[in-house]
Amino acid sequence: MKKNNSGYVSELRQDLVSGDWMIIATGRAKRPNSFIGGRQKFEQKISECPFENPQITGHSEPLLIYGKRNRWSLQVIKNKFPVVGYGRCSTTHKEGPYTIMEGVGFHEIVITRDHKKHLALMSVEKIAEVLKAYQERYIALMDHECVNYVFIFHNHGREAGASIPHPHSQIIALTILPTDVKRSLNGAKKYYEEHHKCVHCEILKCERDEKSRCVFHNKHFAVFSPFVPRVNFELRIYPRKHQSNFEEITEAERMSLAEALKQALYRLYKGLKDPAYNFFIHTAPCDGKDYKYYHWHIEILPKTNTWAGIELGTGVEIISVKPEDVAKFLRKFNPKNK
Amino acid sequence: MKKNNSGYVSELRQDLVSGDWMIIATGRAKRPNSFIGGRQKFEQKISECPFENPQITGHSEPLLIYGKRNRWSLQVIKNKFPVVGYGRCSTTHKEGPYTIMEGVGFHEIVITRDHKKHLALMSVEKIAEVLKAYQERYIALMDHECVNYVFIFHNHGREAGASIPHPHSQIIALTILPTDVKRSLNGAKKYYEEHHKCVHCEILKCERDEKSRCVFHNKHFAVFSPFVPRVNFELRIYPRKHQSNFEEITEAERMSLAEALKQALYRLYKGLKDPAYNFFIHTAPCDGKDYKYYHWHIEILPKTNTWAGIELGTGVEIISVKPEDVAKFLRKFNPKNK
Repeated sequence: MKKNNSGYVSELRQDLVSGDWMIIATGRAKRPNSFIGGRQKFEQKISECPFENPQITGHSEPLLIYGKRNRWSLQVIKNKFPVVGYGRCSTTHKEGPYTIMEGVGFHEIVITRDHKKHLALMSVEKIAEVLKAYQERYIALMDHECVNYVFIFHNHGREAGASIPHPHSQIIALTILPTDVKRSLNGAKKYYEEHHKCVHCEILKCERDEKSRCVFHNKHFAVFSPFVPRVNFELRIYPRKHQSNFEEITEAERMSLAEALKQALYRLYKGLKDPAYNFFIHTAPCDGKDYKYYHWHIEILPKTNTWAGIELGTGVEIISVKPEDVAKFLRKFNPKNK
Repeated sequence: MKKNNSGYVSELRQDLVSGDWMIIATGRAKRPNSFIGGRQKFEQKISECPFENPQITGHSEPLLIYGKRNRWSLQVIKNKFPVVGYGRCSTTHKEGPYTIMEGVGFHEIVITRDHKKHLALMSVEKIAEVLKAYQERYIALMDHECVNYVFIFHNHGREAGASIPHPHSQIIALTILPTDVKRSLNGAKKYYEEHHKCVHCEILKCERDEKSRCVFHNKHFAVFSPFVPRVNFELRIYPRKHQSNFEEITEAERMSLAEALKQALYRLYKGLKDPAYNFFIHTAPCDGKDYKYYHWHIEILPKTNTWAGIELGTGVEIISVKPEDVAKFLRKFNPKNK
């Protein structure tokens, strides 16, 4: 049985937001580079790609387009296979003890022009354009009477659930608050009520002082490997000043965020040799309530493990590389030195 | 955009235990048999299998053995790569705002004799033997002073995270309550305080009356496809009478449970052509507190989808086949008619 420096087979760390305990099984520690590789081939010919010429392949007119119609650099379209319907707001009804309602909302796709160039390899300016599209569509959707939450996410690679290789993000506007969003909000609220402070500001302060988990920071944003990660190699991007709502970022902040996102994704790309990953934005709901205690952020979850019985039954991934080692490893891969 | 019978693209269903909303996207409904197949080959030569002769391949002496030493039918051994260490009970300490403790407990493997014959194909008697081993080890571990929760689970297939094909289950004894266990307990407690009833007894009552989601029942157990599944094709097994603790089942109940487990696993095996799956037992903690409101059960989660950004960020899998259709489909595959 291998033990780590402190003589532990594993360490239990309590998440500051949820109060949940996570297992950092450093006793079966792997070196960071043992997480490299294992990607399945995931390619599609341009002639077969539904996102090369979306309107020719039966998609909706663009909801948003950057550039000219025949020389666009980015467009947002309706998802042909939405998880919620574009219908009228609905109310709940009962079925026995259960409560049901129709799934109503919006499901959109953000497509960048290049068939292969994914976010880690884009220029900071191009990434800023993607963030601008997120923000514009967020603002367009948030005021819709049925919409209480706008969820923005990106899947890269088949193992991360992408079904089409052409780089794209998704935006889903929902009437309900998703489970994990609700948990994240509740945790932040509880901490705020008990300590009269934002839990994420506390985390940022600790990470700035501690430094061992920091990967990058610029004027407005910090990238770090969280003390209690949900998955191996998780990275988080936080605005350094307290801010509840993603959609309120200024143009300068957007450029700063684009740089931070590039830094995070490029380092994972180089360090783990193009891993599959998901990232998503956790931000305050747009349901008209007060969420001043919340601090929006981006979570980036590389796909290095298969979730098994232990993860599915306990809700936590066994972490086998310490976040401190993740940060140290990723600090070596600076996009500026490429 | 496809719609279902009720004209919905999707339906939102609220979980009775957690209060979480799940998306049943029946608008992109697939037929149950479209979930068949896609398994990776997962085999290992007997000569290379570490579980054929555990003591010869460097494992511990059996913690429990059924049959003779050289003709055993089941044995329980220590996991060589435990997620928690076999140490002394530990206390928490602080690191900045964070709380940490050493991961201490027990991690064991339950191995059945046959290299290939997995649970779905075993006789009811053999399955009952596995359940007996679970129960015996549970009882041995629960009284240890460091142990507050004993988590029992089984992974089948590489996609479900099994690393060794030889059929085996795992038992982990922990000082902490795992995240999802805590949620399950909290949900049941809240319902009990509000309604003075066990939420799972209510669910069982509804499923018995409603029937459309029932797959099988015998004297002591019911198998059904839950109204709000966490994953496509999820099945649950509940004791029909209120019972908080798995380890309290009688011998007659254990035989009844073995039959129910066989029914569930065989139907998935036949219906989905040997899918990868995980199952685990959610039972009351053994921390000395009162959990009379809790109702232990088994959750079986077939692996038919890759979790992507939407699932990781929202914490819920998009369900594309209705639990009512799952039950109807699985009712066709009766082990007695094979």
